[in-house]
Amino acid sequence: MQKRADGKTSIFFGKRDFRALDDRSWDVQSRLRDMDAEAVHLQVLSPMPELLSYWMDVKAAVALGQHVNRTISDMVKAEPNRFLGFGMVTMQDPELAARELSVLRSEYGLIGVEIGSNINGVSPGDPKFDPFFAEAERLSMPIFIHPLHPLGKERLVSQSPQRVAPFVTYPVDTGLAAMSLITGRTLEKFPRLRVAFSHGGGILAAMLPRINGSWKINQAIKECFGYPGDAARQFYYDSLVYDADFLRYLIGAFGVSQICVGTDYPFQSRQKHPTDFLKQLNLPTGDLAAIMTDNARRFLGISA
Amino acid sequence: MQKRADGKTSIFFGKRDFRALDDRSWDVQSRLRDMDAEAVHLQVLSPMPELLSYWMDVKAAVALGQHVNRTISDMVKAEPNRFLGFGMVTMQDPELAARELSVLRSEYGLIGVEIGSNINGVSPGDPKFDPFFAEAERLSMPIFIHPLHPLGKERLVSQSPQRVAPFVTYPVDTGLAAMSLITGRTLEKFPRLRVAFSHGGGILAAMLPRINGSWKINQAIKECFGYPGDAARQFYYDSLVYDADFLRYLIGAFGVSQICVGTDYPFQSRQKHPTDFLKQLNLPTGDLAAIMTDNARRFLGISA
Repeated sequence: MQKRADGKTSIFFGKRDFRALDDRSWDVQSRLRDMDAEAVHLQVLSPMPELLSYWMDVKAAVALGQHVNRTISDMVKAEPNRFLGFGMVTMQDPELAARELSVLRSEYGLIGVEIGSNINGVSPGDPKFDPFFAEAERLSMPIFIHPLHPLGKERLVSQSPQRVAPFVTYPVDTGLAAMSLITGRTLEKFPRLRVAFSHGGGILAAMLPRINGSWKINQAIKECFGYPGDAARQFYYDSLVYDADFLRYLIGAFGVSQICVGTDYPFQSRQKHPTDFLKQLNLPTGDLAAIMTDNARRFLGISA
Repeated sequence: MQKRADGKTSIFFGKRDFRALDDRSWDVQSRLRDMDAEAVHLQVLSPMPELLSYWMDVKAAVALGQHVNRTISDMVKAEPNRFLGFGMVTMQDPELAARELSVLRSEYGLIGVEIGSNINGVSPGDPKFDPFFAEAERLSMPIFIHPLHPLGKERLVSQSPQRVAPFVTYPVDTGLAAMSLITGRTLEKFPRLRVAFSHGGGILAAMLPRINGSWKINQAIKECFGYPGDAARQFYYDSLVYDADFLRYLIGAFGVSQICVGTDYPFQSRQKHPTDFLKQLNLPTGDLAAIMTDNARRFLGISA
């Protein structure tokens, strides 16, 4: 991390200047000011996805993970009524990742885990990650999946592909991750898992009607996995989709009980004033309360 | 092509047994029987996408294309009141593809062209295809884009990935193709182009809210291309999405004027009785008529 003249801090990975962040990424008081201004009572902190470090050797990734988990843990402890924390584990070694889950809770007081939409190009539905999901289910620990190093960059056409990538390839990767947990039967193997996807599940909502429709008329597909629409209604999704009509569609497709508030805070494309956005939908009071608080509590496994 | 004992015909590409087809792929009377039974007055015939042959050397692809275009042309001529035809061109050589467009019309009587969602891994929005799009615009020739050799197979998890691929990776490829024409400014360069996407545009509908939302708040994105939502409302999309709620969402997102009937006829996952499906939406009469006939006529450039 390197301080800049404008007060921000540049994040380097080796020599690569990844992104400039301001102190809202680590300073509790800065965050609280925005939260108060935007009617956010409770934030769940999670690692910046690029820090997940699945491409590092295990020893280095464990060390970085300890630092990240400790930092989040300290922020939560500073304001335990306003923050909860999700940690990171070493998914490049799924057995180790499974063992790290209980450490997240016991050592760091973190209540869940964030993983990437792929682990070095492998979908999370791959059976090699079963030990991780089995342990998350056993511990009743929620999992948040965020896009990371997505596929499809070679298909972008733009004068500035790197600017466009987060808006085109991120949702693709998220949707493919979700679909892999469905078609790979992860949710069938571990039916009590609680898994949430960022950005409204990315493209899952648009893939689902087609695979649902085919499943109904195609015996060969039916033999491969259960009805995808049922699995999709077990996942959780955040509301970070910018568009009231699309969120209304997601509520219908996934169920009003499965949508939680997401913000991408504090990054550039974050959604400010998330409850103002939700109020645009003119939902029944109970549905609005479900999305604003109850669903997140159920996903997180915390009481009111 | 090899006849089988069950009456179907196996299609081989080299030694690869691609798919077994019945005579509805080439026999006019067989098709007419289904059309009459399913209230389809007019079908637009187009090449089975695997025949597009972008991976062949140009000379072989031209020869195959001539056979395919001739076959479709002959079917149309046999029943000109029930069929219209789209042909194929040699997109691996964009300049040649541009020249072939007028031949499709003059020699074969075909009114449009089908292309794949990528050309050997390159998105159609790549500037190298500008000569093709410029000529299609000049000739006022409609373009139909169908998924072909999609990316993302390595991300599928299933006991039978090849069965799942058409339902997961096809819509991704279609959506990325559409997005490339938006972010690559193809539609801005050739504003009178008429381009339709199969399967309701695949995942485009789920990518669009995110890039629209970011475009509005991010000056760097705004400088790269015009508002994506406007471009998306210039494209045409077929109704082949199996799900009435999702189609209703597409009508809102893309405009009722942009949806045409699609069927994937005669393949396994085809949508039978397409008008019965549309009637489930309980659309106003004018909207139903637009989707059933008027929009397709406008896309195809034919009068009533």
